[in-house]
Amino acid sequence: MSETQSLSLAKQLIAEPSVTPDDQNCQAILAERLQNIGFSIETLHFGRTKNIWARRGSEAPLLCFAGHTDVVPSGPLEKWDSPPFEPTEREGRLYGRGAADMKTSIACFVTACERFIAAHPDHQGSIALLITSDEEGDADDGTTKVVDVLKARGETIDYCIVGEPTAVDTLGDTIKNGRRGSLSGNLTVKGKQGHIAYPHLAVNPVHTFAPALAELAATEWDNGNEYFPPTGFQVSNINGGTGATNVIPGALNVKFNFRFSTESTDIGLKQRVHDILDKHGITYDIEWQCSGQPFLTSAGRLTEVAQAAIRQVCGVEAQLSTSGGTSDGRFIKAVAAELIELGPSNASIHQINENVLLEDIPKLSAIYEEMMRQLL
Amino acid sequence: MSETQSLSLAKQLIAEPSVTPDDQNCQAILAERLQNIGFSIETLHFGRTKNIWARRGSEAPLLCFAGHTDVVPSGPLEKWDSPPFEPTEREGRLYGRGAADMKTSIACFVTACERFIAAHPDHQGSIALLITSDEEGDADDGTTKVVDVLKARGETIDYCIVGEPTAVDTLGDTIKNGRRGSLSGNLTVKGKQGHIAYPHLAVNPVHTFAPALAELAATEWDNGNEYFPPTGFQVSNINGGTGATNVIPGALNVKFNFRFSTESTDIGLKQRVHDILDKHGITYDIEWQCSGQPFLTSAGRLTEVAQAAIRQVCGVEAQLSTSGGTSDGRFIKAVAAELIELGPSNASIHQINENVLLEDIPKLSAIYEEMMRQLL
Ligand SMILES: [Zn+2]
Ligand SMILES: [Zn+2]
Repeated sequence: MSETQSLSLAKQLIAEPSVTPDDQNCQAILAERLQNIGFSIETLHFGRTKNIWARRGSEAPLLCFAGHTDVVPSGPLEKWDSPPFEPTEREGRLYGRGAADMKTSIACFVTACERFIAAHPDHQGSIALLITSDEEGDADDGTTKVVDVLKARGETIDYCIVGEPTAVDTLGDTIKNGRRGSLSGNLTVKGKQGHIAYPHLAVNPVHTFAPALAELAATEWDNGNEYFPPTGFQVSNINGGTGATNVIPGALNVKFNFRFSTESTDIGLKQRVHDILDKHGITYDIEWQCSGQPFLTSAGRLTEVAQAAIRQVCGVEAQLSTSGGTSDGRFIKAVAAELIELGPSNASIHQINENVLLEDIPKLSAIYEEMMRQLL
Repeated sequence: MSETQSLSLAKQLIAEPSVTPDDQNCQAILAERLQNIGFSIETLHFGRTKNIWARRGSEAPLLCFAGHTDVVPSGPLEKWDSPPFEPTEREGRLYGRGAADMKTSIACFVTACERFIAAHPDHQGSIALLITSDEEGDADDGTTKVVDVLKARGETIDYCIVGEPTAVDTLGDTIKNGRRGSLSGNLTVKGKQGHIAYPHLAVNPVHTFAPALAELAATEWDNGNEYFPPTGFQVSNINGGTGATNVIPGALNVKFNFRFSTESTDIGLKQRVHDILDKHGITYDIEWQCSGQPFLTSAGRLTEVAQAAIRQVCGVEAQLSTSGGTSDGRFIKAVAAELIELGPSNASIHQINENVLLEDIPKLSAIYEEMMRQLL
């Protein structure tokens, strides 16, 4: 393909050192391009976070593209083969922080809109972009706040494409149609400190917790389903003891996390943990944090259109997947009927020498354009 | 009782700031007193540690008194009501670091010898004192080295009285006739670090160890016996995790300790731990340290004489006990047929304002004297 508009815009965005949550000039660049093709731009700033909600048309169905202009820090500059905020073409690849996660996706969507609208100025339905500068950070003032605004006025999305990098080996091989939920617990098991030679005067929290830990580690929380692997429990940190080898510790701290499927709920998992701890007669405190509910878009119109567009542009059969960490999809799903994540290779994200294949850039834009053509 | 020699000598010893392993002038004071009543003094210095082996007579049976001149550090001076190295009488008690652990015992034994030898210059058998300045510290260059010397020349002890503070509520209420063994393990469970969202690419050592920990904590290692409580297992420290809550730890460190009865051996316990870890398929390294074998003097001649002397002097019925931490008895038992520990109250040892009851001092000396009379 000879389309070079997407590459140019991607380079323009990468040249902005927009380390989370500082957007620099990215959203202004996007807003100008979108205004030129008939989008109305709503800026929604919260704290240091900038967000835009750009929409063209007022009819259903609404196809929304979601993404973030912020990037993770570059890491040590001297380890990069070219400066992270100087987009550089080398050996068939475009290098720069944000090249894969996810400035190229945003550029491709904007250029796809430009071509689609030039050909179909009176397209059916509506097109929107939800762009934030706070996805890589706390994510408190970003997409979640925009979704609150949409909810408040009853604005709903029919089809949402999140431009997160999803390709594993080759462009188009993977579409994420959901994500697992994430529930964290910070457990303090209480004992009674004492000298190791006089255990009858102490209560060792490592010992009282041991059978409960064994049960937590062995429990099958659910069997997953067609789209989700089984819910998993993992201890990330366990610490007890004063350092002295002759003292029974007075307390034990255990941090753990569930990545859970749609077959479980955070409320249900909490209850089951409490039941296990109580059954073993443990004295404890626990702090819970649910940082994301699981969500799922069953195979249907949106996934079929995405698979067809990928087949047409890349000749690849895309797999549906729900693996990996969390994304802003967890927030948007509250106002979106169908939602997928589809973007370039995730092999180099958050790493030194982050990059995308040059040949994937016009292809990704073509996939997005073809999806617009079929959905609107 | 009006005997004041013991109090005077105890004060003289407490006035020496002999923080482990620095004997200061204690052993020289003792050597002079013992030489005056016919002991031959052998000085055995190893590193910074001073030891003396003082013996009077060459015949069997040999009654040996064992003790240490070193003391633990005083702690904050301002917390003491009188300076720790200025022996002070106050409200019926003698205060000072080492008053209970164990300069008073040593003083009492020396004065008991003086009175006994004055009355029985041609006593049967032999009397010895084994005094070290390295009991409260590493104990590497103290009693264990003297025992090596005795072993090498085939010198054996028939009756040994270790002057450690053993009284719980009142002088003479408790005789220790043994101590549990101490076996420590430093276990590293090996896993494979990874992101918590991709557990299939990692091996969580907390999870692999969990069922083994539950089994270790629940195991009955033995049932003890007439003299020993059951062998106990305690985890003192457990640490795993990077601090980050999204990382599966690559390794787990667990420090644990056995206090074991004469019904178990260190070799047997090690084997059983390895069997449990192996059964659960755990990959691990383990470092073992056995810092003391259990030892026991069954009720017999020495315990009967001690109980009779206590009954006569104090009107108290002494109980036999094997509880508590380790002492130098673990070393001496290798060359001693019968060994007990018998000294003043242990209520204030290693604490601020360490003290003994003034009225207990001549009584303790009288107990030791009466035991000499009955045994020699
Ligand atoms: Zn991203
Ligand atoms: Zn002591």
